[in-house]
Amino acid sequence: MFRLSIKHIVKLTIFQSKFLITDSSPKIQQKSNILYGKPIAERIIKRCQNECMEFIEKYQRHPKLVTILVGGNESSKLYVRNKQRIAERVGIEFHIINHLMHITPLNLFNTIQQLNNDDNIDGIILQLPLPLHLIDKTEQFINAIRSDKDIDAHSISNYNLYRQKSTSLITIPVVAAVREILLEINEPLQGKDIVIIGRSKYVGTPLALMLSQQTIESKYSLVSGATVTICHRDTHLDNLTWYCKHADIVISAVGRPKVVTHRMIKEGAIVIDIGISKSWTDKAVMHNRRFVGDVDFDEVKRIARWITPVPGGVGRVTVACLISNLLELARQRKKMK
Amino acid sequence: MFRLSIKHIVKLTIFQSKFLITDSSPKIQQKSNILYGKPIAERIIKRCQNECMEFIEKYQRHPKLVTILVGGNESSKLYVRNKQRIAERVGIEFHIINHLMHITPLNLFNTIQQLNNDDNIDGIILQLPLPLHLIDKTEQFINAIRSDKDIDAHSISNYNLYRQKSTSLITIPVVAAVREILLEINEPLQGKDIVIIGRSKYVGTPLALMLSQQTIESKYSLVSGATVTICHRDTHLDNLTWYCKHADIVISAVGRPKVVTHRMIKEGAIVIDIGISKSWTDKAVMHNRRFVGDVDFDEVKRIARWITPVPGGVGRVTVACLISNLLELARQRKKMK
Repeated sequence: MFRLSIKHIVKLTIFQSKFLITDSSPKIQQKSNILYGKPIAERIIKRCQNECMEFIEKYQRHPKLVTILVGGNESSKLYVRNKQRIAERVGIEFHIINHLMHITPLNLFNTIQQLNNDDNIDGIILQLPLPLHLIDKTEQFINAIRSDKDIDAHSISNYNLYRQKSTSLITIPVVAAVREILLEINEPLQGKDIVIIGRSKYVGTPLALMLSQQTIESKYSLVSGATVTICHRDTHLDNLTWYCKHADIVISAVGRPKVVTHRMIKEGAIVIDIGISKSWTDKAVMHNRRFVGDVDFDEVKRIARWITPVPGGVGRVTVACLISNLLELARQRKKMK
Repeated sequence: MFRLSIKHIVKLTIFQSKFLITDSSPKIQQKSNILYGKPIAERIIKRCQNECMEFIEKYQRHPKLVTILVGGNESSKLYVRNKQRIAERVGIEFHIINHLMHITPLNLFNTIQQLNNDDNIDGIILQLPLPLHLIDKTEQFINAIRSDKDIDAHSISNYNLYRQKSTSLITIPVVAAVREILLEINEPLQGKDIVIIGRSKYVGTPLALMLSQQTIESKYSLVSGATVTICHRDTHLDNLTWYCKHADIVISAVGRPKVVTHRMIKEGAIVIDIGISKSWTDKAVMHNRRFVGDVDFDEVKRIARWITPVPGGVGRVTVACLISNLLELARQRKKMK
């Protein structure tokens, strides 16, 4: 766990850049600007473990999380396993309902309804993406999940609560993860220039909303008030480079390798990599680094002040935030009764 | 009504800039780049008149709009009069409920409930801003309006529908107005750089969402796919200038005079002014131009390819879009029964 003051960071950057000029293999210094997700995730998990114990003591049962998996997508299975691992470490009962690929929409709706009505289930995850014959109805399935069990915060009402800045209990996990990472860096974003690459409904767009909104007194006041540019597939490469090169923080959520290269990053910028995709290059296979982010990590880490790795960066914190959402909603639902 | 092709516009711009160098009073040419709201508004009003006649024929009554006005704010009264004028031209029954300044929250809620339950009322407007003792509850009052009568599209569910790109019937009127103006200019925004100044929940933010979202085949495909930067109070002036100077389109929704000066605008850019504030300079009073926008109009119009005036620009189209929303919701509510 680290929390450096601005002064320290500035010194570190100056030192690093000097180092880069005079030495060709500055391994230790380079490593120090990698912002691993593990310590942040572990802190959240520890808090969750305590909250989970309190829950069990109070309600005489474990919080329960059910994941609906449709078909056999390998990546989806990997994600589900990651969630299961963390959930069980925290003390949460974790179930997987693995539907066959060719399930009908009605049957899937019925599954969701049953889970909605089961009072012993505290959280429901519908693992995305759905198979092709269901993909058009994704939004309807998501909205069918009761909002007080929708720990992904995907359903209309939660998304909306989030947007309204009002008393939203939970935040979309990946958005919460970026927030935690920025809080770890501990610099106010007010007036900073941020580029977000990707405009998806559950990642890029809510991130842009969160980071640009008015800074109000709260524990999250550090992570608002930025000038945000939303770049995406329609942004010309020249313009993307131009915006990124000027940015204090670049956040990429595209899912395509090397979207962000070292030519695009300003010296001393913060680079947060949300993208994940499979790489099939010889190097990737040889080093067993098949999952890669959007950022050309090896090159960009020489320039950036902070950079999150993939894997082991945002993804790790995201799972912890998801579990934290479950506990938050479970307690709230119990209180409401 | 005008609809120029890109080719014409380019020629016009070249001609204008030459003109500016050789002649100091190019009145006619200058005027030609002013994008007045009137012809656009009139087109919408004409459509509304037809729709209104059909409604009356079918349901044997006029569509009915009620505006709740609390207190005696002069600007609010002016806005309400503008809405009334257009509504009555279209054939809509327009009522004002003018509550006294010191109305209690409960009484205001009761008024909204009564209007919600009255089947002969098709649209409800709560004129903002509310007096100081109610201002904190603004969101709650707005959310109390039935979403199928909320022609301002302010309430949670409508805002949300809008965001979800799904079958939203109506759009926040000022957002719809900007859309109509951009459609009039008739250039695809895909890949264009847009700066929005202002991040308010009902203007700046939904505009950013609309203009940046993925371009899909629809009648509005021209007005999406842009790279959008959201600037605001926390953006340093240098940065604001830097972003604006690069932008193809600058949209300002601040409500402070001369936020946008000619130094910030790229030659040939489009400038859309949503801001409105009162100016008390001698010049303003002398020329009876007390309401001004955010843009230093006289200077910027020499550089911009298109510029909307205040008054007579976005505001005019906004009122027409509001009335269009009323008819849309009224018909839909009747159909649903």
